[in-house]
Amino acid sequence: MASDTVYRASTTAPVNIAVVKYWGKRDPKLNLPTNSSLSVTLSQADLRTLTTASCSASYPSSDGDSLLLNGEPSDVAGARTQACFRELRSRRAALEAANPSLPKLSAMPLRLVSENNFPTAAGLASSAAGFAAFVRAIANLYELPASPSELSLIARQGSGSACRSLFGGYVAWRMGDKADGSDSMADQVAEASHWPEMRALILVVSAAKKGVSSTSGMQQTVATSGLFQERITKVVPQNMDLMEKAIKEKDFAAFAEVTMRDSNSFHATCADTYPPIFYMNDVSRAAIRAVETINANVGRTVAAYTFDAGPNAVIYYLEQDTEAVVGTFYHVLGEIDGWKQASLKGLKPSMSLDGGVASILKSGVSRVIMTGVGEGPMKTDDFLVAEDGSPVKR
Amino acid sequence: MASDTVYRASTTAPVNIAVVKYWGKRDPKLNLPTNSSLSVTLSQADLRTLTTASCSASYPSSDGDSLLLNGEPSDVAGARTQACFRELRSRRAALEAANPSLPKLSAMPLRLVSENNFPTAAGLASSAAGFAAFVRAIANLYELPASPSELSLIARQGSGSACRSLFGGYVAWRMGDKADGSDSMADQVAEASHWPEMRALILVVSAAKKGVSSTSGMQQTVATSGLFQERITKVVPQNMDLMEKAIKEKDFAAFAEVTMRDSNSFHATCADTYPPIFYMNDVSRAAIRAVETINANVGRTVAAYTFDAGPNAVIYYLEQDTEAVVGTFYHVLGEIDGWKQASLKGLKPSMSLDGGVASILKSGVSRVIMTGVGEGPMKTDDFLVAEDGSPVKR
Repeated sequence: MASDTVYRASTTAPVNIAVVKYWGKRDPKLNLPTNSSLSVTLSQADLRTLTTASCSASYPSSDGDSLLLNGEPSDVAGARTQACFRELRSRRAALEAANPSLPKLSAMPLRLVSENNFPTAAGLASSAAGFAAFVRAIANLYELPASPSELSLIARQGSGSACRSLFGGYVAWRMGDKADGSDSMADQVAEASHWPEMRALILVVSAAKKGVSSTSGMQQTVATSGLFQERITKVVPQNMDLMEKAIKEKDFAAFAEVTMRDSNSFHATCADTYPPIFYMNDVSRAAIRAVETINANVGRTVAAYTFDAGPNAVIYYLEQDTEAVVGTFYHVLGEIDGWKQASLKGLKPSMSLDGGVASILKSGVSRVIMTGVGEGPMKTDDFLVAEDGSPVKR
Repeated sequence: MASDTVYRASTTAPVNIAVVKYWGKRDPKLNLPTNSSLSVTLSQADLRTLTTASCSASYPSSDGDSLLLNGEPSDVAGARTQACFRELRSRRAALEAANPSLPKLSAMPLRLVSENNFPTAAGLASSAAGFAAFVRAIANLYELPASPSELSLIARQGSGSACRSLFGGYVAWRMGDKADGSDSMADQVAEASHWPEMRALILVVSAAKKGVSSTSGMQQTVATSGLFQERITKVVPQNMDLMEKAIKEKDFAAFAEVTMRDSNSFHATCADTYPPIFYMNDVSRAAIRAVETINANVGRTVAAYTFDAGPNAVIYYLEQDTEAVVGTFYHVLGEIDGWKQASLKGLKPSMSLDGGVASILKSGVSRVIMTGVGEGPMKTDDFLVAEDGSPVKR
């Protein structure tokens, strides 16, 4: 082929929201966690990153590797991004060494362009989808025979939770015990099709100010919380077992209780950090009270809250309970953006919430996102890099 | 003496605010705690209960024992109050049996009248001062030779933390290990005069709604928190040792760190309770950020926050640091009630707080209470029961 050939590959990758939380590194350099974790992969129809990886001998090597993220040049000099480039290139180089007829892509500068289909303002951890798409796109470009679990080893080094976004459905990240991290990777507990009724309503809460970053926050917890060891040695291993069982048996009540307990335990260790870290605020706590009210009024557990390193509430529920769960929140928050009117058709206003809880939610929830369990990364011909190597204008 | 003689004794008792928290009962009936705790007794000039105990053969036995609290008849039928009556009467009866010349007070109905000198609206745990005064007043009336530690055994059965209000200064409640609770009592770690410079600034925060009562809340934590065992078996014993050392050495930096860490640990186990218990709100957290700012700006630890089962912030500091601590809060909250103008004379406006923190404090702090370490219960001739046995009108 001509030396100006531009090689391209595109993929999408999903966001995942953990129901057993990752919090703490035993090896910050390799992103090795202090405990295993488990997440639900969310539908890419609502939340996804689209990334095109390209390389060409015609790209000036002086440019080096580059990433355009949501239209803005993004720094790729960071150790974590560099680790991903290095791991992927070395695997491509091995293929090229074994088969000299292959084009020497590993020697060419990489040009990546990436876009999220959701507002970064939503404050959703986009790094998981971002690094999963980054790794998957380059693996596609390099035609690596690597399995999703193998790629999860690489994505993990970019952003820990990214390793779980290499799979759809219900995904576990096994902490492993090897010092080199070669056994700290993700696997699929169940396909999305095993339990397709799982839904998530995300209440986007405007935080007064950006909290402590999870990267530094988790290491402060590891270093200072007197309760943290109990969480990683006793609480999480038990929650992992209970959660896998709940998912395999499609037992929502069990899934919900472990989800809520593990979120509480995670935020408790944050509050026990010195100085204390608070990600939830009064609006987050009002969302918890609302979920408790809904479950109490229905008389069974139909909704489960979980919170990552921020005030947003992610509320899991099953499609058949949309009326009780979504109906109740829509009744209070119908004015704000994000509702899927189609899915609300015929929803009768459900139970009403305590006035205090309702007014706190009204005052602090800026938008909602309605989504559900979904598939893993998907190869696509939607390219963000043109055949001539230039970024596609949208 | 005439059969209509009214026997009277009055005492005051102080409030105490724990710096190593009591949370959890191993025996709810006997009020035996899951862990030891330690508190600072606060000055009765600012916060105290005054209680007069009286008895007389002329009191109609049909009335039985009675308590008038802040002008309102108070139920004394509760098991805890009855336990205190029983314990005190049996000790008096033993004296009477040993010395027949003593009047048979143990057979007479008790009439108690009690008043707090602080607004109950302040949401300060008044039960500690209340039961301490209740027990001390009856012990005085009965002329029991009991030591404060012996009386703390009785007060503990009324309200756990009340046992620490039988002493002034710095007080430990030793959990003990006997099943009958005979070794679960308070002792004095240090007199107020050992470290008289200790001050407390209380930020009274108006709670949106009453939280879970501590009595039921702590048992929910014992039953459901996966992190609680670690707190009572490892965290608290270490904090007790560090705190006693800090007090003996008058090391405020150490006192402050243990105080803040233990408050964080306690509230972390509340957040880890299922369903979670939240006593602190966004205003409480703003107070924490303010204390962190003050300590950072001064360049050493001059203030320590602690929170009981409610949103109020209690901020300990030393008199010599009044300018940095009180000055900073006065600068933001000067408009509200409770400031002691005399002690503020010549206070230059100190450092200013982050705008967000300042506005949250302004919006949520309803009053302040300025106080400091103080003495234990004091006998007084200020009677709330007249010589004829009728309550004194004020």
